[in-house]
Amino acid sequence: MKERDSESFESLSQVLPNTSNPAHMIQMAMANSGSSAAAPPRQDQHDRSKWLLDCPEPPSPWHELKIQVKESFLTKAKRFKSLQKQPLPKRILSILQAVFPIFGWCRNYKLTMFKNDLMAGLTLASLCIPQSIGYATLAKLDPQYGLYSSVGPPLIYALMGTSREIAIGPVAVVSLLLSSMLQELIDPETDPLGYKKLVLTTTFFAGIFQASFGIFRLGFLVDFLSHAAIVGFMGGAAIVIGLQQLKGLLGITNFTTNTDIVSVLRAVWRSCHQQWSPHTFILGCSFLSFILIARFIGKRNKKLFWLPAIAPLISVVVSTLMVFLTKADEHGVKTVRHIRGGLNPISINDLEFNTPHLGHIAKIGLIVAVVALTEAIAVGRSFAGIKGYRLDGNKEMVAIGVMNVLGSFTSCYAATGSFSRTAVNFAAGCETAMSNIVMAVTVFIALECLTRLLYYTPIAILASIILSALPGLIDINEAIHIWKIDKLDFLALIGAFFGVLFGSVEIGLLVAVVISFAKIILISIRPGIETLGRIPGTDIFADTDQYPMSVKTPGVLICRVKSALLCFANASSIEERIMRWINEEEEDENTKSNDERKILFVVLDMSNLMNVDTSGITALVELHNNLIQNGIELVIVNPKWHVFHKLNQAKFVSKIGGRVYLTIGEALDACFGLKV
Amino acid sequence: MKERDSESFESLSQVLPNTSNPAHMIQMAMANSGSSAAAPPRQDQHDRSKWLLDCPEPPSPWHELKIQVKESFLTKAKRFKSLQKQPLPKRILSILQAVFPIFGWCRNYKLTMFKNDLMAGLTLASLCIPQSIGYATLAKLDPQYGLYSSVGPPLIYALMGTSREIAIGPVAVVSLLLSSMLQELIDPETDPLGYKKLVLTTTFFAGIFQASFGIFRLGFLVDFLSHAAIVGFMGGAAIVIGLQQLKGLLGITNFTTNTDIVSVLRAVWRSCHQQWSPHTFILGCSFLSFILIARFIGKRNKKLFWLPAIAPLISVVVSTLMVFLTKADEHGVKTVRHIRGGLNPISINDLEFNTPHLGHIAKIGLIVAVVALTEAIAVGRSFAGIKGYRLDGNKEMVAIGVMNVLGSFTSCYAATGSFSRTAVNFAAGCETAMSNIVMAVTVFIALECLTRLLYYTPIAILASIILSALPGLIDINEAIHIWKIDKLDFLALIGAFFGVLFGSVEIGLLVAVVISFAKIILISIRPGIETLGRIPGTDIFADTDQYPMSVKTPGVLICRVKSALLCFANASSIEERIMRWINEEEEDENTKSNDERKILFVVLDMSNLMNVDTSGITALVELHNNLIQNGIELVIVNPKWHVFHKLNQAKFVSKIGGRVYLTIGEALDACFGLKV
Repeated sequence: MKERDSESFESLSQVLPNTSNPAHMIQMAMANSGSSAAAPPRQDQHDRSKWLLDCPEPPSPWHELKIQVKESFLTKAKRFKSLQKQPLPKRILSILQAVFPIFGWCRNYKLTMFKNDLMAGLTLASLCIPQSIGYATLAKLDPQYGLYSSVGPPLIYALMGTSREIAIGPVAVVSLLLSSMLQELIDPETDPLGYKKLVLTTTFFAGIFQASFGIFRLGFLVDFLSHAAIVGFMGGAAIVIGLQQLKGLLGITNFTTNTDIVSVLRAVWRSCHQQWSPHTFILGCSFLSFILIARFIGKRNKKLFWLPAIAPLISVVVSTLMVFLTKADEHGVKTVRHIRGGLNPISINDLEFNTPHLGHIAKIGLIVAVVALTEAIAVGRSFAGIKGYRLDGNKEMVAIGVMNVLGSFTSCYAATGSFSRTAVNFAAGCETAMSNIVMAVTVFIALECLTRLLYYTPIAILASIILSALPGLIDINEAIHIWKIDKLDFLALIGAFFGVLFGSVEIGLLVAVVISFAKIILISIRPGIETLGRIPGTDIFADTDQYPMSVKTPGVLICRVKSALLCFANASSIEERIMRWINEEEEDENTKSNDERKILFVVLDMSNLMNVDTSGITALVELHNNLIQNGIELVIVNPKWHVFHKLNQAKFVSKIGGRVYLTIGEALDACFGLKV
Repeated sequence: MKERDSESFESLSQVLPNTSNPAHMIQMAMANSGSSAAAPPRQDQHDRSKWLLDCPEPPSPWHELKIQVKESFLTKAKRFKSLQKQPLPKRILSILQAVFPIFGWCRNYKLTMFKNDLMAGLTLASLCIPQSIGYATLAKLDPQYGLYSSVGPPLIYALMGTSREIAIGPVAVVSLLLSSMLQELIDPETDPLGYKKLVLTTTFFAGIFQASFGIFRLGFLVDFLSHAAIVGFMGGAAIVIGLQQLKGLLGITNFTTNTDIVSVLRAVWRSCHQQWSPHTFILGCSFLSFILIARFIGKRNKKLFWLPAIAPLISVVVSTLMVFLTKADEHGVKTVRHIRGGLNPISINDLEFNTPHLGHIAKIGLIVAVVALTEAIAVGRSFAGIKGYRLDGNKEMVAIGVMNVLGSFTSCYAATGSFSRTAVNFAAGCETAMSNIVMAVTVFIALECLTRLLYYTPIAILASIILSALPGLIDINEAIHIWKIDKLDFLALIGAFFGVLFGSVEIGLLVAVVISFAKIILISIRPGIETLGRIPGTDIFADTDQYPMSVKTPGVLICRVKSALLCFANASSIEERIMRWINEEEEDENTKSNDERKILFVVLDMSNLMNVDTSGITALVELHNNLIQNGIELVIVNPKWHVFHKLNQAKFVSKIGGRVYLTIGEALDACFGLKV
């Protein structure tokens, strides 16, 4: 390498006296034009142009796909190969550790860590029990299903998951998704058993989808919901969930099954004139205020983090006692009543694959899978980032998928990582996934012993607990941030928000995805062209708008396509724009009556272009023909690998006489070296 | 400018002794590392980095949209302004010329030109009369409507159009589109009058759409059908049209209304066992052979170009005579029978806007408008290219739109520029749109005098005339060319082809548009990253795969995003890939046990990125955090205007300590200048 360095050093100093900066020479040559003493093109520059012309053939699409797939599985295969050299027991342990990360961290697990995890787990459980019951009602299931879902899934996640902070269990948005989409297939009021089967089957499908995303490294599918869309969707969903809670908070009996704001408000309005329970409302509101005040105190004083966490449980206990003592349930305050206690019953036989709804169930399972994964991975990543370790997205998906599949066998409905409870878990100082185990055991004990005590718990309290968790889902600051940075992103946000609010959960998701992809198309095909000028003192050519100090080269139109694709949708516009510019420039220059300044070359910088299609090539050929008729030559600069290959195959490169260069400087050098 | 040149010359020679090529210095410094005598960053380089950091704010999306709209109308407004200075008569003439280009060219029109145009027009008419009747039957209208459409529209186009070669009239694909889509609304067999009204209303809508595309400069909408999709669509449509002709050629009475190949072949198979007319078949086939042989001769001998053009007319005359003399119509050979003669009747009252189908009609009108414009502009452009003048796309659209609107008032159905007849017009040596006028007058005379003579014309002849025109629509060479150049383009072609063939015309169009846009999305978001190496002897860094001679810089990972967008759909994949690379490189280097070679910097070349969204920025922040934890610094190179602005607003630039540079060379310079 040293040899080459010194070589080029020499060649540089040799050519310095006359061509140190060829572009300057051109400018000078142009300035005192007429004198044709332009610099001869350098030898090494010809070589470089040849490098470009002779570059190897790019890999075909199939080959690229193969490489990509191979790369995805390479790390796994590599690890497996290195394993084969090790002795059997170590090999088994390694595989076990890969599948169940718990075997990795539990060997270094210490008692001090368990103390922290115990505290965190108990705090988590105190928040989880009332929330789970509330979310189960939101999913239109019996309350115990929420508790079931807080026993099985967290245990399995603790074995297989890689996040240390995530708190697993039922969450608000997924519960809403399930109830809003499944009640169109079977009405939970008239056929609760059939509805339950539907929910479990959907959970099974969601788990299968999630696990296969992880196994087949399809994690990128989860990315298809853009950040902005998620913010908007979550905000809209939070409001919809809040509106649903009005039923419990007001003690309304006849409610609508629609989730959009118009239907719900109409139903509330109708009910307010007929039957609602002021007792319930006062009870709910007072405890809602209590929980919110507790949260406010907890935020102010970080040491009191446990106060907002156990406030819901306190509310449940106090309100249950109040109802029991005052016999308010006989005066119109609705209570939870019977919760079936005991461990999760086996529900494999409840999974139904012979229903006419199977296609719908699979579709809903897919939506639930994606939304659940989005929430879990977003929350997992952000806390992993705080603690400074990396989350393995694919492993997470497998863990969440397996936990939902096994969950569907044991009467659990779709669980995932919860925003609010993960924050509590983190604040409570959890160290490992052990806190999930502690929580699951606590919930299990509650299921065994305490369900009878919940008989008098008023439903309004559950509603107020859910309501109190919603502000965490509405992220106004982030929305403002997105508005400031990217207006089109904000459009996706607003689309998702209003889609959920005025349409349905599905419509909101659809709007978000459509806007996000429409944005990609819009940006990719926008027919932009920018003129380039030389940045003084360099050989760099840059956008004259971005760098106002850049200097245009007379006699040449240097332009760059501003989009990544020269394709059917923008090629002819781009061609037309270049021709219009040339006409305008020539008109301008005609008025100046300075014939010497006529445009002789169009240098088209292709460095932005990732790809070109047959329409794009046709447009280039047309452009070339039009330019030739005006006595102008077309020069191509820095086409990317695939672009160059296609241009070459379409014989466009030979059509323009092989005038393809690596840099604009070299192109100008060659142009004026040949012509002036 | 001269001053600045000499200035930078001086500065260059001043710094030459120690930093002539800073990148080389780094390599040398790295090679004998330990010696920290790296080059101090140059003053002017700091300035350049500051230029980047201080670049003006880019225009907002609204502002850009405004500029784009303004630019579109600017040329018109400019011309109008310059008009106001001129005297009134000249002003009127100018406006007339702008709206009706005929006033431009007819002033220089000479008798010799008229001779050519007369010949071309007569040749055109002889081809046009039988084709028009055939296409009218394809559109399930009475034969005279085809002739009407060859009278009005060509006259109006001759006044307003800018193409000199285009031959206007009914075409096969549009006729098929109309009949296949409209017969689902009203059955032409049971309610021919209602169907006719439907066709005229659709034509009216198509014209309105076409004219407004032109007026509002929405010509790019026509580009949304990619070239490949059109080739596939035309091929599929040609086969479908051919299959439809089997009805006439075999003399089948019970035919299917579906257009897909399966239904049609089933209908043909069924009919072949029951009732078909061998006489008709033999008659049709023999004349088809005659026309095809005539075309073959015409292709071989360019002087006999008129032979294929008048062969259809000869067939009509001879076969009509044959039927008349042999009374074959009494033996099962179906004939055209009565054609209503005389000038186009006024049909304004036939336009129906109070129908329940109005939405459908508008939709079909839009599809017809786009397909018709696509054909006309494609054919117009290619012949304009041959003759070396430019077609004004927007003016063409207005001309075709107005001609269809006025056509719908005078019993014409949707007309456009025909592939086959335009080629004949060109071959016959037409000079101006006058040939269209000659043709229209000839067809008008035929309508007045000759319709009675067509009573005995067998329908099989019309079928064979249509069949003979179809091979021109199937462009196998182009399909092979597309396959060679762009596999994904070919997918759109095949999708459109099979969509039309096995689905319907609409499905084919839909498939083509969806595949074309899916391709754009796929290319735009493919999470690619390429490593860059220095091209020996330059300061240029290029893809190491494309340029195998490029040299990697030790201690630095220089990479470039391979897609134009860093967005929700690819940002986290790209981030993960960079981290994986770093881990792999470090693993590789650990095995080499060469600690000195550890990666110190990641230089991320952003020159490809057109845009970044909030998810992309989040991924960059995560990448930065992860790198910092590995003791690696992130450096950004050459962000485009909008990208830089967004990164700046999201405070990412200050987060990475303002390490943003214009070129990779400068970035390396700064890195090693600061660190080593």
